[in-house]
Parts: sequence; C-alpha cells; structure tokens
Amino acid sequence: MSAFRRTVTVRPDRLALILSPNHPTKNTKYTKSAKKIWLEWTRIHGMEAAHTMTTITKPRGTTEDDITAEVLRRFDATAQPRLRDIMQSLVRHLHAFVKDVELTEGEWMTAIQFLTKTGHMCDDKRQEFILLSDTLGVSMVVDLINHRKPEGATESTVFGPFHRDGAPELPAGGNIAPRDKKGVPTIVSGRVLTLDGGPIAGAWLDVWQADSSGLYDSQYAGTDELHLRGRFRSDEDGRFLIRTVRPVYYAIPTDGPVGRMLSATNRHPWRPAHIHFVVSAEGCEPVTTHIFDDADPYLESDTVFAVKNSLMCRFVRHDSRDEDAARFGVEPPFCTARFDFVLKPALR
Amino acid sequence: MSAFRRTVTVRPDRLALILSPNHPTKNTKYTKSAKKIWLEWTRIHGMEAAHTMTTITKPRGTTEDDITAEVLRRFDATAQPRLRDIMQSLVRHLHAFVKDVELTEGEWMTAIQFLTKTGHMCDDKRQEFILLSDTLGVSMVVDLINHRKPEGATESTVFGPFHRDGAPELPAGGNIAPRDKKGVPTIVSGRVLTLDGGPIAGAWLDVWQADSSGLYDSQYAGTDELHLRGRFRSDEDGRFLIRTVRPVYYAIPTDGPVGRMLSATNRHPWRPAHIHFVVSAEGCEPVTTHIFDDADPYLESDTVFAVKNSLMCRFVRHDSRDEDAARFGVEPPFCTARFDFVLKPALR
Repeated sequence: MSAFRRTVTVRPDRLALILSPNHPTKNTKYTKSAKKIWLEWTRIHGMEAAHTMTTITKPRGTTEDDITAEVLRRFDATAQPRLRDIMQSLVRHLHAFVKDVELTEGEWMTAIQFLTKTGHMCDDKRQEFILLSDTLGVSMVVDLINHRKPEGATESTVFGPFHRDGAPELPAGGNIAPRDKKGVPTIVSGRVLTLDGGPIAGAWLDVWQADSSGLYDSQYAGTDELHLRGRFRSDEDGRFLIRTVRPVYYAIPTDGPVGRMLSATNRHPWRPAHIHFVVSAEGCEPVTTHIFDDADPYLESDTVFAVKNSLMCRFVRHDSRDEDAARFGVEPPFCTARFDFVLKPALR
Repeated sequence: MSAFRRTVTVRPDRLALILSPNHPTKNTKYTKSAKKIWLEWTRIHGMEAAHTMTTITKPRGTTEDDITAEVLRRFDATAQPRLRDIMQSLVRHLHAFVKDVELTEGEWMTAIQFLTKTGHMCDDKRQEFILLSDTLGVSMVVDLINHRKPEGATESTVFGPFHRDGAPELPAGGNIAPRDKKGVPTIVSGRVLTLDGGPIAGAWLDVWQADSSGLYDSQYAGTDELHLRGRFRSDEDGRFLIRTVRPVYYAIPTDGPVGRMLSATNRHPWRPAHIHFVVSAEGCEPVTTHIFDDADPYLESDTVFAVKNSLMCRFVRHDSRDEDAARFGVEPPFCTARFDFVLKPALR
C-alpha cells in the first residue's frame, strides 16, 4: 500500500503535547514524522501558521490481517524482550483463532461474559481460572514444558486450585483426617530418594486431598478450618508415614462457568481419586504431583488430564491389623499405599 | 503407540456407576470398552468375580502434543457442531501459544492472576474484558469479520465498553451535553441514506461520547445519571441534528490490569476524539460505528485500533453564528460536523 497525503488541522496545544518528551506517544513513529513536518512547517510559515498543516499518513488497515500486523507492531516497543515475545505470540494465536472460526459478535459477547463470570467466581478459596486452565489441558501442557524429568525421577502433575497455605506440621504417622469418620482409614508410606536410590533425610512433604465425600475443606461453607492437609518430614532413612482416609473420585466444582462449559460440551466433571503432594528437599528440585488410586474408573478420562502412568499407586485393603496399624491404633478394615518419591538435583 | 494390558481392581459399585445410562461418562470410549470387557468377564466368571478384572488401557500422554490430542478428542462429543469447532480451535491455538513461548509456571500464574484481576474489575459500569479485547485488537478483527460492507456503506468499528441502555429519546437539535459547560458547543448533522443515496426516514441514531474532560458519565463516582447519551430519529428527508460538545482525545481507563499491560509494554492509552453511533432502520442492517475528529493527533495510534479512513469527519470551528446556531441558541465559538450514514439492506 502506498502512502498518500491528507490535510489535517492540528491545534498547536495538541502538538505541544505530542512533542513533550514525557508524553506517552514519544516512542511512536507518528510522533517522529509529525515532529519533523511540524518543525519544517513552522520554519517556513512561522508558529502562527501551525494552526493548519499537512502531514503524511498511511491508509489505515481495513483487513483482519492489517489489524494483526498493526497490533504486533505496537508491541515492538516493549522493553523486556520476553514480555514482547509473549504478547506478540499471544496476539498472533488469539487472532488466528478468531479468524479460523470466524467468530460472530454474539459469540464474542458470550466469551466476554464467560470470562467475566469466571473472574467473579474467584475469591480467596476458589480459583475458577485455574480450573479453566486445568479443564482445557493448558495446565498439563505448562507442566510438561516445565518439568522434563530424567528417567526415574518422580513426574509432576497439575497443582490444582485447592492448595492452601498454613497446613500444620505433623510427626510421622500424624493423621491429616481426624474429623473424617466415614472414610476408610489409610496409611500412606514410602521414602524420599535421590536418583541413585539414596535416602533424602529432612525432605518436606506438603500433602492435601479431598475427604471421603469428595470435597476439600475450602468447599465447605461457613468454616475456614484446615482439614486433610499436613506437612511431614522424611526421617534419616528418607521414610515418611501419613495417616489419612482413602481418597475417592470426585467432581470438580460445577456450579460456575467451567461446570457449564463441561456440560455444554458433554464432558464429565470427574477426577480419579488422588492425594496431592509437593515434595521438596535442600539441593533438589521440588516436585508438585499426585499419587493416583490405580483402581479408579476415571483414570482414562480425568477431566483435567493430569494422570501419568508413573503416578499410579495400589491402595491395598486389609481386613486384619498389621504392624503399622497396631502402632497407630488403626482398626480394620483399612488401606495401605506405598509410594517412593525420587527427586532430581536442583539446577545450580 | 501400542496399547498394553494393565491389571486393575475395579469395585462393582463403581462399575455400576460407569454403566448407568445417566452417568456423565456414558459417551466416553473408555466406558464402551469397560462395559464390553465387564460384560464378557461377568458372563465367564459370574458377577462375584467382577471384584478383579483386566482391562485394556492406552499409555497416557507424556508429551505436550499427546495432551493436546487428548483434549481435542474430549470435545468430540459436543452436541452442537459450532460449539465443538470453536472449543477445538481454541484448544489448538491456546496450546500452540503455550508451546511456542514455552510458558513458565511463573508466567502461567501471572496470567491466572491477570485474568482474575480483570474479572474483579468488571461490574455493571466497567467492562475490563472488553477493554482487553479492544487493546489486543481482537474486537477489531471480530468487527472486520462480521461486517464486510459493500462499497459506499458506512463502515463499522468497535462497540467499546461504555455503551449504556436507557439513553433518552431527544428531538432533532436536542442537546446530549446540557451539563458540560467547558466543552466547545458542537452541532453534528447529516443524513441517513440507502446505498443508492435515497433518504431513510425514522432511522434510530443511538449516540454516546465522552465529555470535554475525556470521561464518560459512568466514569464519575457517586452518580448513576446518564449524560452525553441520546437517541435521535431521522426526519422524512433522512436528516438528523444533534447538539453536543466537541469530543476530545482521552485515555482509556488505566487503573486496572489493562492499564498495567499497556504501561508494561510501553503502549500509550490514548484514543482519538470520536462520537459513538449505532444507526438502525427497518429493513437495514444496523451499523455500530464512530465518527472521528480528522484533526486528532492519535488517529495513527488509537490504542484500540478502531480508526478507519471512511469514518473521518471534519469539525469546523465557527466564530460567528450560522442559521442552525441561531435556531438553537448556540453562542460562538462553536463547531459543526457533517456526516452521512449509509445503511445496507438487511439480509432476509
């Protein structure tokens, strides 16, 4: 497209604004050419003549691709190269999506309202945008990009929207589910190990899970109490032992926009039974992960795509006491589950 | 990837759930194969034997592309083909963005928080997601896709976040800015026409704009009063005449996440001076548009990319009365602006 000349009237007070070094347009190409033209014009005709002047202007974009090119160009001046790359890639992909589906104005407004309701659903206990990211598989893609593990290291999976700070530190064998009377008592034990199988002493295990009704503590109205959360440390042999209840499969919260998205697309809201862990130790890269009940019917169709084969764990039912059960006063029937966490060294 | 066999223990009560026709997993492939295997197993071994069974399972995705493929597949069961296409395209482009930039977990969390704050900024007077769509150029791409106009018809542009319902119906010459004493009185007049230049009588012109301080009525705290808004009708010759103040360039609201995005990327928040119109008439396609002051310094760099050459309008300054000014008691200095709206016929 060729440039053409267009006559415009510019008020000197506005030009003063454009030329001020503190003005937000100082980095734009427009300002530079306007300044040059204005200086030339006032040199020839005097300050007073600046009331009317001629400037060079490009024809403005009238196709979708012109708009995309212009938006990309506007992000050129971003000082941080990483932020510039992210914004330009976002614009490129977002525009490509809108063009590919030829989004209608009604659909665009539906999307605006969906995002607004998703934001309004978020508070200090509920994170609907994380739930949206999880159910669109975005969280798992981020997880896979960020945690390329060497063979043998425990794989990571989604953090999820239900972690809370402030879980109590408990001794080995501490019960994170003291108020859950309906759940099947369960002893989860194992070791925290290095890649070559050595024990990691003093590792932290931050544990949280849903109760036997499939709800996290924060999903109960009228209470801020923490439940089914705890922080444990591994002993000198890397061992840990946690008392809890057997996790059950549960539906993610469906009373918000994400629930409506799932039902509109014929997707179920279920997650296979799991226990959340963040395992960390000095000199090691921490791992955010789950252990999954390997008998769960939703392993194949986890609504947040978080299942990995290496995170399967057998929950074994016992109808008589064993040594650990006797030691901690657990009455049969109960379950035991064993899982070892293997941490890779931290990057220096 | 080849399928492999994995032994799992399945509790019959859970299988009953899977097999129930009302259960949300009824459309999943997993359910069909589980059902087939389960039926065969119980035929051979009897109901009791269903406590343990062997099922066929695929290895779960461990690469980013596996996750994308799985997420796309999960949307296959969407009943509405249009919704399915939109969701699958969204997933494809959203995942491609995350992979292209190799989004870190910290950046992902920043995005979650940005979206959450954007949602929290929205209420009945403020629509931060529309502002985000506008400043990322998405709104203009949607506009261009949806309004491919024949030569001569008035082009559309963004709706923007400031429209409000309930503007008063005013007679020709009605003043939409009675309380704006600092603005330059302005008479906007013109005609509403068909593509072949004939007048359209009884067309509605829904008008709104910012005041001489660059603020819309809804941006003033503590008042719900409508100001600088009105609804006019064209007369039998298609004519309209609106009294207002000359629009000024203004900054979009910068006290929210969108403002922070603009400043982080060195973009200015300015929009060139304009007046919003929605012009509609029976048998015609309505047009949502602006008229722009063709002397504005921000025409080249409108922060929402909404400027089109065909929407330029000359605001002419007068230092003595003319006929219309005398009729409506407008004292010089004042401005006049003329713009004709051309509507295309509605699709049948």
